[in-house]
Amino acid sequence: MINKLLIVGCGLIGSSILKKVCKNKIAKKILVFEKSKSNQRTLKRFKLKFELIKRMDKKISECDFIVICAPLNQYEKIFLSCNKYLKKKALVTDVGSAKKSAIVKVNKIKRKDISWISSHPIAGSEVSGPLNGRENLFVNKWSVIIKQKNSSNRDMKKILKFWKLLGSKPVIMNAEQHDKIFAITSHLPHLIAYNLILTATNFKISNKNNILRFSAGGLRDFSRIAASNEIMWRDIFLNNKTNMLKVIDLFVKNLKTFKQDIKSNRRSLETKLKNLKKVRQKIVLLKQDTSKPDFGRI
Amino acid sequence: MINKLLIVGCGLIGSSILKKVCKNKIAKKILVFEKSKSNQRTLKRFKLKFELIKRMDKKISECDFIVICAPLNQYEKIFLSCNKYLKKKALVTDVGSAKKSAIVKVNKIKRKDISWISSHPIAGSEVSGPLNGRENLFVNKWSVIIKQKNSSNRDMKKILKFWKLLGSKPVIMNAEQHDKIFAITSHLPHLIAYNLILTATNFKISNKNNILRFSAGGLRDFSRIAASNEIMWRDIFLNNKTNMLKVIDLFVKNLKTFKQDIKSNRRSLETKLKNLKKVRQKIVLLKQDTSKPDFGRI
Repeated sequence: MINKLLIVGCGLIGSSILKKVCKNKIAKKILVFEKSKSNQRTLKRFKLKFELIKRMDKKISECDFIVICAPLNQYEKIFLSCNKYLKKKALVTDVGSAKKSAIVKVNKIKRKDISWISSHPIAGSEVSGPLNGRENLFVNKWSVIIKQKNSSNRDMKKILKFWKLLGSKPVIMNAEQHDKIFAITSHLPHLIAYNLILTATNFKISNKNNILRFSAGGLRDFSRIAASNEIMWRDIFLNNKTNMLKVIDLFVKNLKTFKQDIKSNRRSLETKLKNLKKVRQKIVLLKQDTSKPDFGRI
Repeated sequence: MINKLLIVGCGLIGSSILKKVCKNKIAKKILVFEKSKSNQRTLKRFKLKFELIKRMDKKISECDFIVICAPLNQYEKIFLSCNKYLKKKALVTDVGSAKKSAIVKVNKIKRKDISWISSHPIAGSEVSGPLNGRENLFVNKWSVIIKQKNSSNRDMKKILKFWKLLGSKPVIMNAEQHDKIFAITSHLPHLIAYNLILTATNFKISNKNNILRFSAGGLRDFSRIAASNEIMWRDIFLNNKTNMLKVIDLFVKNLKTFKQDIKSNRRSLETKLKNLKKVRQKIVLLKQDTSKPDFGRI
């Protein structure tokens, strides 16, 4: 389907794409741009058929499909270094978790005859780097494709097909919808997890060690999400700023009500907790999580 | 070791104790008090050797070891109905997750010649009821034993032995230490999970359904904890009120700083996230969680 694929940045997501593309022969030729020396070494050990490039030059001029798998704050730099080499009508996508501000930035600097359709596979982990890449990372996961006014049908079809070939379930949204939905389903949960771990570590207690020793009662779950890559998440928070500030305010407002419920022994507390309990069943029915108690950790 | 054991309340924890005690023959005779008709039916299907009692009467007068596995708000009622039947020096414990206020309440109403040493196994799940009970629920989990001024060495030894026989690792604390540690490692994480699910459900968005469909990016993890039993958690929040109010305030203070970090693009944000990431490794090293990425859910 793809003649020459360029993967820009080959961490967890980039290497998972690389593995699947090689396995299912989705592209005739693959170039991988990766800056980190340690990642380069890992990639070489893969024994897969691709060419590792260490700078953007005319080698990339034959590529018809480019996937940027780098942190959001790298996009401008990447486009500036690719712009003059990419061929006309080359199709560029990405895997970033925040859309609106990234699309605005890219639209300002990219060459007009390059096609740019942003995408976001809802797959990832607290672990990062190519060592953790898996060819099946995207299987049965959503991949959100961002449709802009100027997105051509032909290119939209190509992007949809690409994500289907990787095993994911594509769904089309606009950037505003995307950033709002993921502010509440992913970005706020990550910030809250980081903030809970922060609160546990700066809570004044006689014996600090005790806290982590007794984390199995709830805190440990949050530590997993709070172990996510710091560069990626700094960029997501900053690139979805408007929504982040809104959801933080809503969260604090709700938490203050909970505080009052507890302070005043409000009878409504039980009903509130009972209703919130139902959300888990819905998530499991939507096949968004395992039905096994305790995530099957037992 | 135990002559006649009485389990008061036979949900997840009570039934797990029952199964292990039967399996390892920890008690010569077992009485189980359970109010719920549906739980009674489940317990009968266990085909284990115990006597189910539906009211407190002279049948319990031979019991030398009593474990209360009922919600915290039931303790006073339970002691009022047991007091006149229990034999002198009978040893009573419990499995409640908040200690100080429960101990004060019990000390006020229990007969002076009954021994009362509170305990708290750090084991549980978002699922409840005897159907989910497992004989190995306590294996390699902490069990906190609360030492009071008047706790006799003989009874402390008995309690420690009981929790060891169930497979757990006993650790001794006072009620204040316990309530402070678990406010931050368990009670706040639960409230935060409930509050995040609440925030997701009252966030104004055009298509509500989308939110849960896309919950795999983080929200789903919190929905598991927020699916915990509402009676149990209402009682925990109310019985550890002073600490809850303190940790909520600290959490909100920290979250507001995070909000400013995002609002002002503070460079410190990256370092902050990077430092918080390290906590996960410590928790895994302390064997408080699986080392598998994504809890091994993949």
